[in-house]
Amino acid sequence: MTKRVFNFSAGPAVLPVSVLEEAQRDLVAMPGHGMSVLEMSHRSKAFIAIMEQTEADLRTVLAIPDDYRVLFLHGGSRLQFSMVPMNLLGGKEKSADYIVSGSWGNNALKEARREGNINVAWDGKATEYDRLPETRDIKLDPNASYVHFTSNETIQGVQFAEEPAVGKVPLVCDASSDILSRPLPIEQYGLIYACAQKNAGPAGVTIVIIRDDLLQRSPESLPGMLSYRTHAEKESAFNTPPCFALYMVGLIAKWLREEVGGLEAMNTLNQQKAKLLYDVLDQSEGFFRGHAQAACRSLMNVTFRLPSEELEKQFLAEAAEGDLVSLKGHRSVGGIRASIYNAMPIEGVEALKKHMLAFQAKHAGQKV
Amino acid sequence: MTKRVFNFSAGPAVLPVSVLEEAQRDLVAMPGHGMSVLEMSHRSKAFIAIMEQTEADLRTVLAIPDDYRVLFLHGGSRLQFSMVPMNLLGGKEKSADYIVSGSWGNNALKEARREGNINVAWDGKATEYDRLPETRDIKLDPNASYVHFTSNETIQGVQFAEEPAVGKVPLVCDASSDILSRPLPIEQYGLIYACAQKNAGPAGVTIVIIRDDLLQRSPESLPGMLSYRTHAEKESAFNTPPCFALYMVGLIAKWLREEVGGLEAMNTLNQQKAKLLYDVLDQSEGFFRGHAQAACRSLMNVTFRLPSEELEKQFLAEAAEGDLVSLKGHRSVGGIRASIYNAMPIEGVEALKKHMLAFQAKHAGQKV
Repeated sequence: MTKRVFNFSAGPAVLPVSVLEEAQRDLVAMPGHGMSVLEMSHRSKAFIAIMEQTEADLRTVLAIPDDYRVLFLHGGSRLQFSMVPMNLLGGKEKSADYIVSGSWGNNALKEARREGNINVAWDGKATEYDRLPETRDIKLDPNASYVHFTSNETIQGVQFAEEPAVGKVPLVCDASSDILSRPLPIEQYGLIYACAQKNAGPAGVTIVIIRDDLLQRSPESLPGMLSYRTHAEKESAFNTPPCFALYMVGLIAKWLREEVGGLEAMNTLNQQKAKLLYDVLDQSEGFFRGHAQAACRSLMNVTFRLPSEELEKQFLAEAAEGDLVSLKGHRSVGGIRASIYNAMPIEGVEALKKHMLAFQAKHAGQKV
Repeated sequence: MTKRVFNFSAGPAVLPVSVLEEAQRDLVAMPGHGMSVLEMSHRSKAFIAIMEQTEADLRTVLAIPDDYRVLFLHGGSRLQFSMVPMNLLGGKEKSADYIVSGSWGNNALKEARREGNINVAWDGKATEYDRLPETRDIKLDPNASYVHFTSNETIQGVQFAEEPAVGKVPLVCDASSDILSRPLPIEQYGLIYACAQKNAGPAGVTIVIIRDDLLQRSPESLPGMLSYRTHAEKESAFNTPPCFALYMVGLIAKWLREEVGGLEAMNTLNQQKAKLLYDVLDQSEGFFRGHAQAACRSLMNVTFRLPSEELEKQFLAEAAEGDLVSLKGHRSVGGIRASIYNAMPIEGVEALKKHMLAFQAKHAGQKV
């Protein structure tokens, strides 16, 4: 096999090698079909079977109840930032609550405000999004149309360990960066959306899981492409879906089911991987300073600083020499970010740990 | 190589084998990068280089003037049906003109009407969209914000041989099914959009070519994902683009430039391929009845009927036995549709011609 590096990119991100190899094997002609999946009509029996199997496998691994629909949409989570309020707000006199725990929650808030009345139920900006709210800190409106939160913030590296308590108001979650990383109590949600390019596949397709009754809220006036109800009625084929990305999501779902053994097993491995790195932070005597408070740490994105920007540059350069790449923190916050999604093998995390320990041993004396 | 059939699907459609083979070769690890293109951060140097090369090659093959921007967007042409009026209409007191020459133009019209005042400048419904308008038939408003037309209608198989004359009003074209099939006088257009899955790549990415000055029309109130100006300002990376589909568009553009030798050569081959089939129709003494009037025939989608639905079924079944697949007409019109886009080799068209002649020889006596 061609040489591969350990890719810590926050997304698009590492994919399982066995999945890539299956896609590669069938890319010119899928056995029994005589054509690539890239060339299949989305209305063909062959492709409809791929869509159905993808949905079935997602339903199995995520234990999605029967009264929820699974949609495969274009546009990424950014389009969901608008589609959620367009579909669920319910009119000018209504409002929705947003819990803002990082940059992505803030982006969702900005787009939602274009569509109607939005209340900020909590915002962690004051402490640079290094923590999550206590239940008592969240100011909820019991008459809100929905409550929106971001389960994992990739830029700051904070992750909700469990769902915020929102009573009977439908809970809406941007789960783009931690869907499929652990079991999820879907029945606590009204709607979950996730672009694929972190844990669920490549960029280009977004998974939406929506409770049946919420489909009735989509206004008739919405463009077809922006209406959850239209997409549900047309079974995600109102227009040509992003077929290849969807096929890859299917391969990921099959990998989780057959190779990983489900989301409990995936979560256990993700816990182990994250612990390897957070232990280095905690035992570094301040050489590596984690951004997130310990109780709010993400299992997906480990964010930390070194004593100086100079050392951070050197850390990244030497990591790259050891084939550990895409570790640079998001341009808005700097520092280091190790994204260790489902498909990052534990060997990659161990190699990074080794690099961190060696780098600290060499440079700890330079601490400023 | 694994056996391949001749795939006459209207889209997603056949892709060049050499392009599929290059994508396959690099799918697990792109040489020099140690990761799949599916795993590359869209902000990485490697992927930005892919985007830039893709745009450069499209600019070369299409001879796109410098005062036009090239955008790569999510959502397919269906989303463009809404984005065009959202961005270009220019307010409630303005209107746009639509030339409707088939099912897709009609779909564009329906979505546009949700956004504001739309006039139908011509509609070919009365003759089941079997022809295109004469210039004198098109009722244009000189104060319209833009004129919209569909250069090729895949379902009915009618194609404009040249641009409708619209004076100084910006011309907007849905070129989804014939972009890159022939040279295009871009300077006659205000905006051209095309989903990739016919001539330009796989499903999941849409190419928008827009004249600079029109970017100023996008209202500030639009969601970022629906604003041409935002996408232009962010160079198609306002959010994560559909990376793999975009990469494939790049391979197609390179194929057109290096292997085909440009759009003049492509057009010559496409003319040859279409003539093979239309000659069979014209010489069949009515056994095969083309849907489109001869002067309006599409070089991309050859649509025809047989003397009975029974014979059509038999024609399709026997074609499939000979590895000629996806020839069934669109469910809304029935009959046979042979889509012979850029990547359909002439050998495939010759095989279909042979099947048509043999079928006619066997069944002409049954003509009803």
